[in-house]
Amino acid sequence: MENLKNRIQIGVIGDGNCSENASLLAYNTGRLIAENKAVLVTGGLFGVMENASRGAKEAGGLVLGILPGFEMSDANRYVDIAIPTGMSHARNVLVVRSSMVVIAVEGSYGTLSEIALSLKIGVPVIGLNTWDVSTDIIKATTPEEAVEKAMLMVKGDRKSLFKNNI
Amino acid sequence: MENLKNRIQIGVIGDGNCSENASLLAYNTGRLIAENKAVLVTGGLFGVMENASRGAKEAGGLVLGILPGFEMSDANRYVDIAIPTGMSHARNVLVVRSSMVVIAVEGSYGTLSEIALSLKIGVPVIGLNTWDVSTDIIKATTPEEAVEKAMLMVKGDRKSLFKNNI
Amino acid sequence: MENLKNRIQIGVIGDGNCSENASLLAYNTGRLIAENKAVLVTGGLFGVMENASRGAKEAGGLVLGILPGFEMSDANRYVDIAIPTGMSHARNVLVVRSSMVVIAVEGSYGTLSEIALSLKIGVPVIGLNTWDVSTDIIKATTPEEAVEKAMLMVKGDRKSLFKNNI
Amino acid sequence: MENLKNRIQIGVIGDGNCSENASLLAYNTGRLIAENKAVLVTGGLFGVMENASRGAKEAGGLVLGILPGFEMSDANRYVDIAIPTGMSHARNVLVVRSSMVVIAVEGSYGTLSEIALSLKIGVPVIGLNTWDVSTDIIKATTPEEAVEKAMLMVKGDRKSLFKNNI
Repeated sequence: MENLKNRIQIGVIGDGNCSENASLLAYNTGRLIAENKAVLVTGGLFGVMENASRGAKEAGGLVLGILPGFEMSDANRYVDIAIPTGMSHARNVLVVRSSMVVIAVEGSYGTLSEIALSLKIGVPVIGLNTWDVSTDIIKATTPEEAVEKAMLMVKGDRKSLFKNNI
Repeated sequence: MENLKNRIQIGVIGDGNCSENASLLAYNTGRLIAENKAVLVTGGLFGVMENASRGAKEAGGLVLGILPGFEMSDANRYVDIAIPTGMSHARNVLVVRSSMVVIAVEGSYGTLSEIALSLKIGVPVIGLNTWDVSTDIIKATTPEEAVEKAMLMVKGDRKSLFKNNI
Repeated sequence: MENLKNRIQIGVIGDGNCSENASLLAYNTGRLIAENKAVLVTGGLFGVMENASRGAKEAGGLVLGILPGFEMSDANRYVDIAIPTGMSHARNVLVVRSSMVVIAVEGSYGTLSEIALSLKIGVPVIGLNTWDVSTDIIKATTPEEAVEKAMLMVKGDRKSLFKNNI
Repeated sequence: MENLKNRIQIGVIGDGNCSENASLLAYNTGRLIAENKAVLVTGGLFGVMENASRGAKEAGGLVLGILPGFEMSDANRYVDIAIPTGMSHARNVLVVRSSMVVIAVEGSYGTLSEIALSLKIGVPVIGLNTWDVSTDIIKATTPEEAVEKAMLMVKGDRKSLFKNNI
């Protein structure tokens, strides 16, 4: 049997109400995550979350949606496994903790909170046209570059990438 | 493409340090959940959680582990997708909310808290030799009976089974 | 200045929609907690929570309300400090953790979940006509007996009372 | 009896390991909050949190500490009421939700996550030499200016200040 401990979980974070450019970036990022056999982790709703999920599903991937509300049916239609936390924005911490690395696509304040929590906890952040608040954010200009860097980080010595304590 | 909204999530709850009988009940419950094409949801650790997960994996199923601690590596080896909540026992609420129905196998105080939260929230509880605290707990004497009842409840009019508000 | 580390926090848990008898038990329990200079911790809503809070306020005490919803204004009018968690029933864990001992007054499933979480975490539970699910629950027949036992436990070697690990 | 619904809760957020300048800013901010009869809300630990708490206590105020860990004794010595959440950084959401307005004093990634969550949820943020990530942060140059603005906002039409939905 496959060594399950090798399963890779990568988060894509971004706005639920996003630009056309962000939609396309998210779609391709999700698709590439699935093509790399990694599980996609998102907040389960719309905009960047839904587009990444659609990309992952169309490439045969598996999608986890960690929802703010109470109902599994709040999830977008591409979510395979829904976690209805009922914890509102506190679920942002769970999205980040469930990801070995997060890729931020544009985004507003919710995304900024996830970026900051990631950096605090020590989950590496790769940024695609997102908040420019720290040199600890690893910049990428295309989904290809973002996912390639994400996979390298997960497969490398992840611990050494962490600058903060849990 | 498969209608993902039909994906079924069933929880198995019980002690992390369990009897041999509970291990066997959990193993067969997990196996039957997977044979019914449902996703298994557990707390991701040992005892009942690990045995149910092993049963599900050996039957080709998918296992979600919602962990109390900070590390994905805390999960038992049969967990496919790990959610390291970092929220300790507060994660019990998430296990319950992520399940359309829970099957309780024996269990101590942690399991009792999950049973009570399920009954409060309106997630049906099926009991296999577990706490006898309410007639709202649907009793089963074998894993076969437990999973059969669980599947019926999920496929039936789930709303009508709920006695409590969210 | 007063040694703040000696401040005592005692929880009162019970139903938001309670019997007249429970209202009276809760009122007197809250009053006695305040007379003992302890802070009252509750879930901040109605029924047992409100009656205990009223008792504490009328005796000049301080009341903390840990709310399930988003608004401070959800609190009953006797709450001094409101914590609107936005976490729904997951706030039950916080009520329990913020109490050095909890006094359970009657109660339904929500209260049962708090009793189970307390016993799991190691917060002593004193029961006033509540769920009879464990010999670890210390029974009391009057608010006077309940608060007297609570104060003894908090002032004694609290650690030795704990049967479970955190 | 005092109308408890008029009780004001103001948060001070900042690093647990802060500069001497931040310590002084925090101390005076806490002092002024207490002089304005408002409750001080913090994360309960050290650095900015402890200095603000000390200022509030020395001015006769009341201090709430919402802790990341499991033990009330983790709180600094100026905390009156301790909430040991056991939820690690997810407690940042609770600090923010329990505040009608937050005053950010310098700060690193944890503080940035609290600022972002505040802005997302609609809790006004006043910044004292902190992250400059949004024009929605109301700048202040002294503790006096920060607390004066905070009190005006709480007493004014708070709803109209909110730019985001809950």
